[in-house]
Amino acid sequence: MEIRIMKNILDRNQNKADEVRSLLKSKNVKMVNMISSPGAGKTTLLERTCEKLAKSHRIGVIEGDVTTDRDAQRLKKYEIPIVVINTEGGCHLDSHSISKVLGYFDLDNLDILFVENVGNLICPSQFDLGETFKLAIVSTTEGDDKPAKYPMLFREAAAALLNKIDLIPYTNFNIDNFKNDLRNINGQLPLFEISCTMGDGLENWFQWITKKICP
Amino acid sequence: MEIRIMKNILDRNQNKADEVRSLLKSKNVKMVNMISSPGAGKTTLLERTCEKLAKSHRIGVIEGDVTTDRDAQRLKKYEIPIVVINTEGGCHLDSHSISKVLGYFDLDNLDILFVENVGNLICPSQFDLGETFKLAIVSTTEGDDKPAKYPMLFREAAAALLNKIDLIPYTNFNIDNFKNDLRNINGQLPLFEISCTMGDGLENWFQWITKKICP
Repeated sequence: MEIRIMKNILDRNQNKADEVRSLLKSKNVKMVNMISSPGAGKTTLLERTCEKLAKSHRIGVIEGDVTTDRDAQRLKKYEIPIVVINTEGGCHLDSHSISKVLGYFDLDNLDILFVENVGNLICPSQFDLGETFKLAIVSTTEGDDKPAKYPMLFREAAAALLNKIDLIPYTNFNIDNFKNDLRNINGQLPLFEISCTMGDGLENWFQWITKKICP
Repeated sequence: MEIRIMKNILDRNQNKADEVRSLLKSKNVKMVNMISSPGAGKTTLLERTCEKLAKSHRIGVIEGDVTTDRDAQRLKKYEIPIVVINTEGGCHLDSHSISKVLGYFDLDNLDILFVENVGNLICPSQFDLGETFKLAIVSTTEGDDKPAKYPMLFREAAAALLNKIDLIPYTNFNIDNFKNDLRNINGQLPLFEISCTMGDGLENWFQWITKKICP
């Protein structure tokens, strides 16, 4: 019985996700579902990305958070449209909440809509938001075993970003182990090795995401 | 309708949690539900704790993981009883799975049972396992805003451990902001500032947890 109900919920989520995907496609808006553990650097990546691209591209952001609007406050200075979804304890965003807040954006004047999902490496990867693609973001300080221990996200993502590479010298992070595990899970996954605070490796990321906006 | 069903599920979880709690109390076994983001250092904390206490106290461990037995492998050398629960995609442990695996432990010869929950700062804090108390573990590299952004866990925990304090000089972590937020959420919460890799601050933790075992 529980399984049947869960399936119904997921089915309804899927229908709504398909609706969101069709609407965004008709408006030529790319939607990026950003997934990571808490504190892996999603907001800092958005800060760097807005600094580089917000003048040449029309960027919008949906901020998913359990509570507070702190992440949105950090992005305000880029003068882009931002909507916060507070899940009030909920562990992931879903396509219904995305569908509801899309009305707050002028989709005819938007190139890319970043969705910063709730900080959680598990649940968000199980809910289709109607995104164009998912991004997996993981930081070196979480340890090199994260792809092996949380493989779902890395199977589905269009790219992985390994953040905080500047901290590798101070940790026991082994990049060969990390890459081997990642290759076993998803051999095709592009990987960007970056530091959002120091700026390392970001040019490759900017080029990749720019191409995704205008292929 | 969805809310009603969820309430039923939680009610049943609560009944089983009460059963687990009674059983452990009758055996005088303390059960510690360890909750954190992925990679905050739960397993390394267990390594240090086993090194210090496994000879003087009878320790058992339940390892909750989405997949793999990597954490359990790291603890094998301490020659303590360990049971792995693979949730296969599930985002938290629940009292039913705990109840099932308790049978693998000799509860008459156990002082403390550490449960390393699935790496997730949200869902595990919403499910009572029948634990004696919860521990909130958070690392400096996740940022100083984690208590404010994920307050549920910090409201319920018996203690908080701030791990990776050795990495503070290389990050923008502000310990005053962290402590202010924590105090606003739960002014009574004991806080241990530690580095599980460097050994900083662990003596205070060992003293506190030893007292919890034999008050």
